[in-house]
Amino acid sequence: MKCRKCNQNAVINMREHKLALCKEHFLTWIPEQTQRSIETYQMFTVEDRILVAVSGGKDSLALWEILNQLGYAADGLYIDLGIESDGGYSSRSRQFAQAFANQRGLALQTVDVRQREGASIQKAAQIARRGSEKTCSVCGLTKRHIMNQTAREGAYDVIVTGHNLDDEAAVLFGNTLNWLSGYLLRQEPVLPATETGFARKAKPLCRLYEREIAAYAFLKEIEYIHDECPYAKGANSIFYKETLNSMETARPGIKLAFYLSFLKAKREGMFASRTNAAREFHICPTCGQPTLNMDECAYCRLWNQVRTVIEEPPRKP
Amino acid sequence: MKCRKCNQNAVINMREHKLALCKEHFLTWIPEQTQRSIETYQMFTVEDRILVAVSGGKDSLALWEILNQLGYAADGLYIDLGIESDGGYSSRSRQFAQAFANQRGLALQTVDVRQREGASIQKAAQIARRGSEKTCSVCGLTKRHIMNQTAREGAYDVIVTGHNLDDEAAVLFGNTLNWLSGYLLRQEPVLPATETGFARKAKPLCRLYEREIAAYAFLKEIEYIHDECPYAKGANSIFYKETLNSMETARPGIKLAFYLSFLKAKREGMFASRTNAAREFHICPTCGQPTLNMDECAYCRLWNQVRTVIEEPPRKP
Repeated sequence: MKCRKCNQNAVINMREHKLALCKEHFLTWIPEQTQRSIETYQMFTVEDRILVAVSGGKDSLALWEILNQLGYAADGLYIDLGIESDGGYSSRSRQFAQAFANQRGLALQTVDVRQREGASIQKAAQIARRGSEKTCSVCGLTKRHIMNQTAREGAYDVIVTGHNLDDEAAVLFGNTLNWLSGYLLRQEPVLPATETGFARKAKPLCRLYEREIAAYAFLKEIEYIHDECPYAKGANSIFYKETLNSMETARPGIKLAFYLSFLKAKREGMFASRTNAAREFHICPTCGQPTLNMDECAYCRLWNQVRTVIEEPPRKP
Repeated sequence: MKCRKCNQNAVINMREHKLALCKEHFLTWIPEQTQRSIETYQMFTVEDRILVAVSGGKDSLALWEILNQLGYAADGLYIDLGIESDGGYSSRSRQFAQAFANQRGLALQTVDVRQREGASIQKAAQIARRGSEKTCSVCGLTKRHIMNQTAREGAYDVIVTGHNLDDEAAVLFGNTLNWLSGYLLRQEPVLPATETGFARKAKPLCRLYEREIAAYAFLKEIEYIHDECPYAKGANSIFYKETLNSMETARPGIKLAFYLSFLKAKREGMFASRTNAAREFHICPTCGQPTLNMDECAYCRLWNQVRTVIEEPPRKP
């Protein structure tokens, strides 16, 4: 297999794009594609201050690397969720994120959920009586809240995350299998900032396959945590990804076509927009962030509950 | 495994419904479910004259049997497409349909495409330079046209087809993977008659799994053609069905949930309806049936082309 651009030996054959590339051209192609997504969806410009949510995994670290290479001003945010299983999953991921930042002289801000709220994600999920499958919902809620607050407090123009095409296609697949119109309406490569207090959010890797980013991280010698989060096992998202992967094997490119034709159909007015118009946001009296609740936001409610239980003196038998 | 209703031995365990039933109760359950769909979607009443499109396969014959059992006045229509491969696929299917009608004293009307138009579906697909994969599109166009014409000429109130849940879910899946909004808007258990000349169409088995109908046909000793149409091999619809089947194995009921949540979301106004408003039908000057074309309809155009080629004297070498 030869590189389409220079006819040297190719390092990767992307059947999804009918494109094989050598190392040099592949390492140029990935940032070019990212830049193309940034422009196509008007995610941000070189004037914007960017906050990259980094997990220590390949996608977010590759994204941070690409953004800096493309000349964007991007700081990192690592949220330590306090996950201790799998040999200290959180502290291991944190080390990868910190080492990456140190080696490149980049600014990384860290928020430790245990220090901030007094308990880990596991503990919170236990107390909120959400089963082990629901740890992911506590985690998602917490991360979204902290990311938004950090972006606003630090006057960042945009939060960017490392979601790749496989992530986006799996979310879309799950929402489509259940026809969740609210979620379908909100799934976008970029969500604008709102007057109610949401920062702008963007996903510059949304059109790149996970495999492509893994190859990029490998060739760029980016060191990252290879393990999946221990709570992801058996999650619906894994089931959706596996299904899409087996479809992709049979029909290369089907994942990208599914995602892009969705965005196109939406842009062309496929969905009635009224579903979203009814969403009225209020300001949480505790934290000042926007919420659909009439009183405290879901984040404050959850963590107040957790603190109440933890601070309660244990009953005598 | 015991029958949920009478505690006798069950003949079928439907994981998709968490329901096991004995032969007696299963044979009651299937017509009950069909009746429920007929009423839920207001497909037709006992006053209506019904034309059942029968292919000789299990779904359409089981449907015809059920409709008669439920007291509906349903005549059959068999369209002989002239498919000669697989040991005379069309004539074998026709024999099953005719034998079914004869045994039960039901009226079956037959339209032979070769007699009517002078060529088989294969020949037409060849001449229209549609590849072997496109034989299905020639076939679909031809069947829809003949069904509609027969229903109107015979003053039938509604055309019913044996599409089961697996068929509907696969069509939905394909249209969703490509976000074809026009097709998504038109996929309904019942389509009303139009002023422009389309007869009402209904799919009373749309909520029953293929496996459930196969079990019903088996237990009712309905004799039908077991082979798939030879042209279906490698078709997209088979790929979608296989994918959905493997998902169903992992998550029983996912197929039904996918289809029903789609219908629900649509009823609740998920889609902008303007996509369909632009469809303006005209009357075909040749056959008098409605068409989106400004002149001849696609059916007349295709078969005129076929006749022209066939009647052309072969050129001398």
